[in-house]
Amino acid sequence: LSSALITLTSDFGYDDGYVGMMKGVIYSINPAALLVDLSHSIAAHNIGQGAFLLHQAYRHFPPTTINLAVVDPGVGTARRAICLIVPEVGYFVGPDNGLFSYIIKAEQERGANLTAFALTDPTYHRAEVSSTFHGRDIFAPIAAHLSLGEAPANFGPAVEIDQLVKLEKFWPEIVQKGQSRLIKGQVAQIDHFGNVITNIPANLLGELTQAQRDKIRFKCGWLTAKGLKQTYGQAKKGQLLILVSSSGFIEVARVEGMAYVYGTGVEGSPKITVGSPLTLSIS
Amino acid sequence: LSSALITLTSDFGYDDGYVGMMKGVIYSINPAALLVDLSHSIAAHNIGQGAFLLHQAYRHFPPTTINLAVVDPGVGTARRAICLIVPEVGYFVGPDNGLFSYIIKAEQERGANLTAFALTDPTYHRAEVSSTFHGRDIFAPIAAHLSLGEAPANFGPAVEIDQLVKLEKFWPEIVQKGQSRLIKGQVAQIDHFGNVITNIPANLLGELTQAQRDKIRFKCGWLTAKGLKQTYGQAKKGQLLILVSSSGFIEVARVEGMAYVYGTGVEGSPKITVGSPLTLSIS
Amino acid sequence: LSSALITLTSDFGYDDGYVGMMKGVIYSINPAALLVDLSHSIAAHNIGQGAFLLHQAYRHFPPTTINLAVVDPGVGTARRAICLIVPEVGYFVGPDNGLFSYIIKAEQERGANLTAFALTDPTYHRAEVSSTFHGRDIFAPIAAHLSLGEAPANFGPAVEIDQLVKLEKFWPEIVQKGQSRLIKGQVAQIDHFGNVITNIPANLLGELTQAQRDKIRFKCGWLTAKGLKQTYGQAKKGQLLILVSSSGFIEVARVEGMAYVYGTGVEGSPKITVGSPLTLSIS
Repeated sequence: LSSALITLTSDFGYDDGYVGMMKGVIYSINPAALLVDLSHSIAAHNIGQGAFLLHQAYRHFPPTTINLAVVDPGVGTARRAICLIVPEVGYFVGPDNGLFSYIIKAEQERGANLTAFALTDPTYHRAEVSSTFHGRDIFAPIAAHLSLGEAPANFGPAVEIDQLVKLEKFWPEIVQKGQSRLIKGQVAQIDHFGNVITNIPANLLGELTQAQRDKIRFKCGWLTAKGLKQTYGQAKKGQLLILVSSSGFIEVARVEGMAYVYGTGVEGSPKITVGSPLTLSIS
Repeated sequence: LSSALITLTSDFGYDDGYVGMMKGVIYSINPAALLVDLSHSIAAHNIGQGAFLLHQAYRHFPPTTINLAVVDPGVGTARRAICLIVPEVGYFVGPDNGLFSYIIKAEQERGANLTAFALTDPTYHRAEVSSTFHGRDIFAPIAAHLSLGEAPANFGPAVEIDQLVKLEKFWPEIVQKGQSRLIKGQVAQIDHFGNVITNIPANLLGELTQAQRDKIRFKCGWLTAKGLKQTYGQAKKGQLLILVSSSGFIEVARVEGMAYVYGTGVEGSPKITVGSPLTLSIS
Repeated sequence: LSSALITLTSDFGYDDGYVGMMKGVIYSINPAALLVDLSHSIAAHNIGQGAFLLHQAYRHFPPTTINLAVVDPGVGTARRAICLIVPEVGYFVGPDNGLFSYIIKAEQERGANLTAFALTDPTYHRAEVSSTFHGRDIFAPIAAHLSLGEAPANFGPAVEIDQLVKLEKFWPEIVQKGQSRLIKGQVAQIDHFGNVITNIPANLLGELTQAQRDKIRFKCGWLTAKGLKQTYGQAKKGQLLILVSSSGFIEVARVEGMAYVYGTGVEGSPKITVGSPLTLSIS
């Protein structure tokens, strides 16, 4: 475990050296750790965006990977700090504020036996803990100690999984209406290429006939699209299409050399952004 | 070779975790790999910009370096995936869409014996290959297997170098006009400091007298400059000067504490950008 | 020392591959080096900003860490290149232009016995040294050779610490006015969260009574705040408060889910930016 992989996710940005300091703390404890930045561009304090990004990525890393995640508006208050353990997947270290909501939900649906511990024992924290930067002072040293093989139970008392804080309405809701189904979800990410990625896992749609695939309708404010395709190649330049994203979520893309959706809204209509509600209807 | 260096270049940006997922895939196969990000800020789908950035950088890495490059507008179509081998330099893994044009041209001029293989054998891909993210599902695992010493011939059939896709007009053209030479090139990069870097390698100018150096003229739309200098110190604050860039290409810079050229164009004149045509005249 | 940690700080940005090339040079010399990016977003040629960022971060890394820092407007001129050695802290490699001013001042106040050497021996530079990119051609190879255990005295002649270039007025000044003290400082950084971080180390305030803490006044142009708090939790949403930053400096933050100060100035008043003068008054 000593050369264990540690991923880092935060809303710290790349400019101020905060991420570098966390790495300095980790390497001070375990110079053999392998560090991978997932993203430090989570919108400041946007727990939902961070939670989804972790969800999208966590299954692409080796088992026993340690995921350090810090989107932490409640730092310095009484909010709990936790280590969540997912068998055959790895560890999640961060504030108990909903950041692991998607992972808990998805892994419980898979039947995984999750456990969690509060990070209360100062033995495993930095000697001096600031009131505003627990990423550096608590979560980074905990991740480093985990990578050295320390047992999570040593960090503090066990916490029941259903006692952990969950995001509100983060998981898509299915409404049956006679012959047709309505899936109510939200925009989970608008990526670098302008793809609008939803929080709806493709497997939530179940088995579909080709006729059903062709009739699927997506609606998010002014943005509408019809027909679930397999690849960009199945639509013409400029067309919107519904796809399964490379991480397994329903997304809407525009084919135009690059796919994008930015700035194509109707004047005066609400902006589409992370968290905007959307529906997918299947009949 | 197990601790081989792998460079990563893409148009994925730093925000969405796509680069992190590629690293997760690589480390899952070879945890001893050394990973270096070259740039993930290539403009979306701008193959020419990616090709030049690789060209500028690739000679600064150890021999046997594996260069993973993904600017891939044709992902999911029939475009070929390749591994290019440059003796004493290393490996280039990516889509066959012109991304290695400069390197092939430069290395052929040096007399290097290049070989290439198509990446068709699924043994070396991820178990599940998406239609939109071959960076993660094909190129990353191939790079990781290369770093473990796998022979490129195992990845698929050999491809003739002259069968590989090349960019159009990417290499500067020399026109002789009586006593004077005109070199027609293009803007290859506008860097963080505002330097306008051309695709003209300095060695294309040949041996020049001081009188010839002083008379060299650069023209790119509204941007003109005269006289090839050795350092910033040879011009005054605010002056434009022609230089050889740190990677050996002709560039135009403005001396002003920092060098920059942004936003100094004549109203209504076309914007200078990556790909803009330019000329260098030597008499 | 062969797996020594090397931090990298510069004004190169993340787009052009310049940082990647420096890493290529380092790994060519020592593939076992551990590299950590501190920040490459220093404003172009802003030595003061780079100097402060190093100051904020350097104590969070293991002893013997090598800090490679390049904000280098004078590259190619006669400005000196140096390696500064701080016992029990590590090495600082970069141009002699004031970039290490804070560290020298802080460590001298701690009574550290500093030494420095000029980097004049070409044996330890790249074979070909450009006139515009000493980060890659001189500082990166020096850092790599240091990480292999090379003695700094081999790089060139010793330089007296008081002969090194210092920034002007970078250190806060204390003015005693009868019963009250005025500390004159400057804005050292405006971070990703909008916190205005000053160059005033909290320990410069000395021991304060609660009454004194409550009466402390901060003034920087239109931005004023009163009362030194311990955490964000001690003020209401939207309020400005004075805090000690996670790295030990006086900062001003606004509580509003996220703390920020951007764009809240009075129309026509001067912009608050890195380098803006400010005062802290204690009575």
